[in-house]
Amino acid sequence: MANFADEHPVKSFGWAARDTSGHLSPFNFSRRATGEKDVRIKVLYCGICHTDIQNATNGWGASTYPVVPGHEVVGEVTEVGSKVEKVKVGDKVGVGYIVGSCRSCDDCASDLESYCPQQKLTCGGVYYDGTLTFGGYSDSLNLPLDAGAPLLCGGITTYSPLRYFGLDKPGMHIGIVGLGGLGHIAVKFAKAFGTKVTVISTSLAKKQEAIEHLGADSFLVSRNPEEMQAAAGTMDGILDTVSAVHPLQPLLMLLKSHGKLVLVGVPTKALELPVYPLVQGRRVIGGSGTGGMKETQEMIDFAAKNNIIADVEVVAMDYVNTAYERLEKADVRYRFVLDIGNTLTKST
Amino acid sequence: MANFADEHPVKSFGWAARDTSGHLSPFNFSRRATGEKDVRIKVLYCGICHTDIQNATNGWGASTYPVVPGHEVVGEVTEVGSKVEKVKVGDKVGVGYIVGSCRSCDDCASDLESYCPQQKLTCGGVYYDGTLTFGGYSDSLNLPLDAGAPLLCGGITTYSPLRYFGLDKPGMHIGIVGLGGLGHIAVKFAKAFGTKVTVISTSLAKKQEAIEHLGADSFLVSRNPEEMQAAAGTMDGILDTVSAVHPLQPLLMLLKSHGKLVLVGVPTKALELPVYPLVQGRRVIGGSGTGGMKETQEMIDFAAKNNIIADVEVVAMDYVNTAYERLEKADVRYRFVLDIGNTLTKST
Repeated sequence: MANFADEHPVKSFGWAARDTSGHLSPFNFSRRATGEKDVRIKVLYCGICHTDIQNATNGWGASTYPVVPGHEVVGEVTEVGSKVEKVKVGDKVGVGYIVGSCRSCDDCASDLESYCPQQKLTCGGVYYDGTLTFGGYSDSLNLPLDAGAPLLCGGITTYSPLRYFGLDKPGMHIGIVGLGGLGHIAVKFAKAFGTKVTVISTSLAKKQEAIEHLGADSFLVSRNPEEMQAAAGTMDGILDTVSAVHPLQPLLMLLKSHGKLVLVGVPTKALELPVYPLVQGRRVIGGSGTGGMKETQEMIDFAAKNNIIADVEVVAMDYVNTAYERLEKADVRYRFVLDIGNTLTKST
Repeated sequence: MANFADEHPVKSFGWAARDTSGHLSPFNFSRRATGEKDVRIKVLYCGICHTDIQNATNGWGASTYPVVPGHEVVGEVTEVGSKVEKVKVGDKVGVGYIVGSCRSCDDCASDLESYCPQQKLTCGGVYYDGTLTFGGYSDSLNLPLDAGAPLLCGGITTYSPLRYFGLDKPGMHIGIVGLGGLGHIAVKFAKAFGTKVTVISTSLAKKQEAIEHLGADSFLVSRNPEEMQAAAGTMDGILDTVSAVHPLQPLLMLLKSHGKLVLVGVPTKALELPVYPLVQGRRVIGGSGTGGMKETQEMIDFAAKNNIIADVEVVAMDYVNTAYERLEKADVRYRFVLDIGNTLTKST
């Protein structure tokens, strides 16, 4: 096992998973010295995304341990490299799902760094220097400015597909499946675009809150065949944020002809794809990852203008394993955020 | 059982399947008198589409017996109703997959009759008068002119999705999966659009013909992992004409980011949908049915201008069951056509 505490010059500390249990515990490691295009930030807060659990438990089979999760990072700049121009010490910045891309492929040239084949993930990836990337559940982070700030995850992952697939036209009827960390932000964006929003959930529990608090226009219980049948063929598009294995047929039937179902959750197994609803109504199933820097900035500006923020429950670092357990049970409204700045303390 | 021979005034004769064996045999039935907006045609030729077999064997669970298949019909007008203006006796006309639509919904208003929820199929459907529709494996057919000519099936079913999904731009790299009745026409259209065309097939058997005769630029054997890997990420779009259950993952991996896989075959079972390739590369899976009248006319004009015709094997009516057997084994290059005009003879 590599000597993570000494491979780079800058001593760092965070919480890491060591195996597929996904259990997190304190972890001493190191980060590279601040390069000429790097920005070092002191981490203040880090959101808990469901993807963090997949990374920590190796749910997608792509994790290399130890894994320090965390890719919804907000912090303060403490040092900048000699070639950094856009950010100065003391600035508040954000980091999202990726910390690097090749900057030369078609996708990078089109401001779609998040689809660059050479992209480097914020945590659990292998960086250009061959070392593992460790995420935001840690005291500091440094990153090349060009691929770093101001990326976040949950917001851009819902904003980007609503835009790309044209589901942002006033008067459209948009379904949002799953009212979790992504779903609740998606409702806010879709309403801000001027669409009619229906939340689709497996249980009635969140109906009142979806309508009264988040501003959804209606609510469908996906396990109620009568309700689903009554809404058949009424939606222009559906954004599906669920990462558990679930049936697509009932969702496809909610779409009008030429409607679009967009998946942003990645289940660990393949889903069942009924082909007839696609062919018969020229419907489409698409996927979408996170967004590039340009669109992320656009999203942040749009969110600021429309007073869109995530609803969060701020918790201490040593609560992270409990937070994972509660997140797996959807017991959070709607996003856990780790108070790294105040609660990450060295135990060794 | 209804008395099909007497329910309408016009005595008719064709070949029908009586049960899920799909075996066809002579069948006496009747058609309605020619209405004021109807055109009666004498059937001359009828293509055999794989969908005919699905209809005859109830492969999709939607057939009502007896089934007279046939929805690629060419014939000669023998009678026109009093309000018919565009067609006269003696005209050669064609009929495709549908013979009626509501003419008032959004899809009909957009020249997309083939997505009208009230559309009436040419065979095996229930018409507005409540009686079964019988297809082109018969001596005559009458149909409302507005939803009838000049629709065909195989051509428009490949032309329409290449257009709708934007896979018709010169210089694009397009994959065509399956070199059967639909696939071989798709190759011709895609080449005429100026794209680079790669045929993707389970076996090497048709490689020479695909390239030398149909004009494809290259050929991939889908069961050869090395070949598939070498072509990964190179295609802008793929038109998948296969109606057997088959894996989508290898096809999705051939697509560039933001690429589109379009299904026009409808397997009898759900396919496995791997979500990661959709999310990771913002790829799309779409479906497409047949086309509306306006686009079908556009397709016919485009085909005429570019000398595109289907490659056919013309067979006699009493060869139909053998043709079905051979079609199931893909033993035809590339479309059977029944010579109805010369070989449909009454046996009773």
